[in-house]
Amino acid sequence: MGRVVVEVMPKPEILDPQGKAVVGALPRLGFTQFTSVRQGKRFELEVDGPVTPEVLAAAEEAAVKVLSNPVIEDVVRVADIEADAAATITSEGLA
Amino acid sequence: MGRVVVEVMPKPEILDPQGKAVVGALPRLGFTQFTSVRQGKRFELEVDGPVTPEVLAAAEEAAVKVLSNPVIEDVVRVADIEADAAATITSEGLA
Repeated sequence: MGRVVVEVMPKPEILDPQGKAVVGALPRLGFTQFTSVRQGKRFELEVDGPVTPEVLAAAEEAAVKVLSNPVIEDVVRVADIEADAAATITSEGLA
Repeated sequence: MGRVVVEVMPKPEILDPQGKAVVGALPRLGFTQFTSVRQGKRFELEVDGPVTPEVLAAAEEAAVKVLSNPVIEDVVRVADIEADAAATITSEGLA
């Protein structure tokens, strides 16, 4: 059983009222470091069997055609979630 | 200028009606590979200056206290977005 992660964010020129609400709330709760927040979506798609290149290609197509609105959103990531988990551990090691 | 990505997903035992709607729509549009879909949120938090360990710690605290509802959601990732981008290229290379 494999999983593919697809991530979608509002385009930079599009107003993001959810992000604006969050960036307004953060300083009131003591988080003064953050100057801007954008809110998007994360999807986890499950397949029977492994995440093959064909599955990734289908996920990329679904990301553009079904999971995002290309007028206002960009697909920022399509990746095998297991490879991603390994990569995240690496990046935490670097941080 | 640094950016931190925070990702939040509904807990596995929580019903996810948005994910159910997507998994119902995909086969009608020709995507028959995917057996389950969960939909969560992705936040990009911007800071002036670099993403230090202190910034990451603040983002982790904000993720739990502001960006997610711990009753129904899990924070699945808090990472420096630049390190993340590098890691994603690596995982695409592996895929």
